[in-house]
Amino acid sequence: MKINFYPGPSKVYPQVARFMQEAFEEGVLSLQHRSPQFVEISRKVQQGMREKLGVPNNYTVLYTSSSTEGWEIVNQAFADFEGLHLFSGAFGQKWFDYRKKMLPERTHSLPFSLEDLPPVPALEQPEKTVLHLTQNETSNGTQIPMSYLQSLRQRFPEALLAIDVASSLGGISLNWQQGDIWLASSQKCLGLPAGLGLLIVSEKAAQQARRTEHYNSLPFLLEKMQDLQTTYTPNVLGIYLLSRVLESVKPIDEVARQTSFRAAKWYAFLSEHGYPTLVQNTEVRSQTVIPVKGSPTFVRQCKAAAEEAGFVLGNGYGDWKATTFRIANFPALEEPEIEQLQRFLRHLQLT
Amino acid sequence: MKINFYPGPSKVYPQVARFMQEAFEEGVLSLQHRSPQFVEISRKVQQGMREKLGVPNNYTVLYTSSSTEGWEIVNQAFADFEGLHLFSGAFGQKWFDYRKKMLPERTHSLPFSLEDLPPVPALEQPEKTVLHLTQNETSNGTQIPMSYLQSLRQRFPEALLAIDVASSLGGISLNWQQGDIWLASSQKCLGLPAGLGLLIVSEKAAQQARRTEHYNSLPFLLEKMQDLQTTYTPNVLGIYLLSRVLESVKPIDEVARQTSFRAAKWYAFLSEHGYPTLVQNTEVRSQTVIPVKGSPTFVRQCKAAAEEAGFVLGNGYGDWKATTFRIANFPALEEPEIEQLQRFLRHLQLT
Repeated sequence: MKINFYPGPSKVYPQVARFMQEAFEEGVLSLQHRSPQFVEISRKVQQGMREKLGVPNNYTVLYTSSSTEGWEIVNQAFADFEGLHLFSGAFGQKWFDYRKKMLPERTHSLPFSLEDLPPVPALEQPEKTVLHLTQNETSNGTQIPMSYLQSLRQRFPEALLAIDVASSLGGISLNWQQGDIWLASSQKCLGLPAGLGLLIVSEKAAQQARRTEHYNSLPFLLEKMQDLQTTYTPNVLGIYLLSRVLESVKPIDEVARQTSFRAAKWYAFLSEHGYPTLVQNTEVRSQTVIPVKGSPTFVRQCKAAAEEAGFVLGNGYGDWKATTFRIANFPALEEPEIEQLQRFLRHLQLT
Repeated sequence: MKINFYPGPSKVYPQVARFMQEAFEEGVLSLQHRSPQFVEISRKVQQGMREKLGVPNNYTVLYTSSSTEGWEIVNQAFADFEGLHLFSGAFGQKWFDYRKKMLPERTHSLPFSLEDLPPVPALEQPEKTVLHLTQNETSNGTQIPMSYLQSLRQRFPEALLAIDVASSLGGISLNWQQGDIWLASSQKCLGLPAGLGLLIVSEKAAQQARRTEHYNSLPFLLEKMQDLQTTYTPNVLGIYLLSRVLESVKPIDEVARQTSFRAAKWYAFLSEHGYPTLVQNTEVRSQTVIPVKGSPTFVRQCKAAAEEAGFVLGNGYGDWKATTFRIANFPALEEPEIEQLQRFLRHLQLT
């Protein structure tokens, strides 16, 4: 099996193999989602999210089938709010495009460029506005620092902040109080297979969410989660694996220190060995997704040689499809694997 | 591990344990859903559904996250159609209630009773009507025979037929041409874990489906499936396990013969040993879900004694919650397991 440095789906934690076996042996694959056993697994997820990732007690963790469903749920729940999207990359833009199609009158964009912090917007009616931000932009390897979120929060305490942390949740420390709706998925920093999304919702957002007749209406999901259940048959195995991974990982502060240390090493290594990174500004470059920039030929050759040597590198995405490849710096990757890839890159000679 | 006779999620095929291990070893858990490897798995599902379950070439198999999402997709796609719901049980009623809430003006019901075939409706505008039927009603163990669907089809060739086969797909032979939209899920007769739904759509339905801006708009899902892909990050592991189970099962005619033989044995056994079944009419009683009827005390005692002896029986559902327990007759259950449960029931003496 190749070592997978794709920034999601990426390498899963090695213990997932054992957890799957135990799921089979313990009958988890046949569990009713209304059974006490499922409720117990769900309780462990809530507990693990609080103990290991620091999710506050007044935030609820919901299961979705994907981050895209998460977008849909948020669009529905706040359809009567103005939506302002701040983005510098393809996933932030996609999120904007999706809301714009559904709610064209109420959806606005504030794009910013790769090396910049997002601007501070002017809001006419902050108490009826959802600000949409992509904390870690998987497509171009930029990130929004927590300090920016904090200043936004201070300036507009009435606004709701919806924050995409698809490729950072589980890898870095998040300052939960600075956001109201956090969207994530299992197949990135959580080191799990795809097929499970997470929506982490503050009390403030919960109180303002509009009820619809859809099965995934946010108030309905929140109501069911009071009993640790869902409004539909969920991916029980995915939720079980999440509960086990949360049990087995270190607290986020420790994981975040490792992520930060490894990221610094990666950036230093790449600079030293002639691999220019896409983002230069250290304040906004991602710690979990690292794009390397070059000519289309260089990028193609790097990926092909890596493949041959047993590594999967991430393709470029969107505007950067041909001229970057991406390296995941996710916690499930192990030190010797990173060293192996660095050794390979150090000795790579392209024709 | 207890032997699970719950009518879904029920016992998974034993080979699922090995398939999960192989998924881990082959890197399936880290597969990108736009990669050629995923497309190949998806191709195998399409092929398996045709070869093993007889899905015709002009029907498309779509992946959903649950049957409930399937309802949502169908409601959206045919929101400008009249919807008539024929049902005798709780799941058919739920489906009706769901559409009624979303499309109150255009949703009508035609309930019928437990021992009856559904009536033949009078349709004012059959070419703009979706008939909703629950082929196998998991809540009360009734089924609608294929011959009824055929007569409905002959009478209203212009109408669309949406048919819930959640607890029969993979267990009995379906006459695909008699329906346009078939809704199913993985955790019942397919012997797989929960977290994956299926939507099988005829060309006729595809042509009439309305496009919306939702990510799970039916025309958009169909379009992506031309490339064997999805519009969101799917449950890749679930889809892989489905591809492997389809490879490993016998063709549906053979499976259906076994289901039918075992169902006949179950009904004879229950009648002989003083376990009255809920449904008497042999034409409408289910072959895959068998409810046994009795006083609340009898039902409670049976379930508790079975639990103690290592079997999980299904609770009653809806109106029949207290006065029935249900036995799954799903293909993943093995002959010796069924014999064990029958031996237990034969010797059970309640106080």
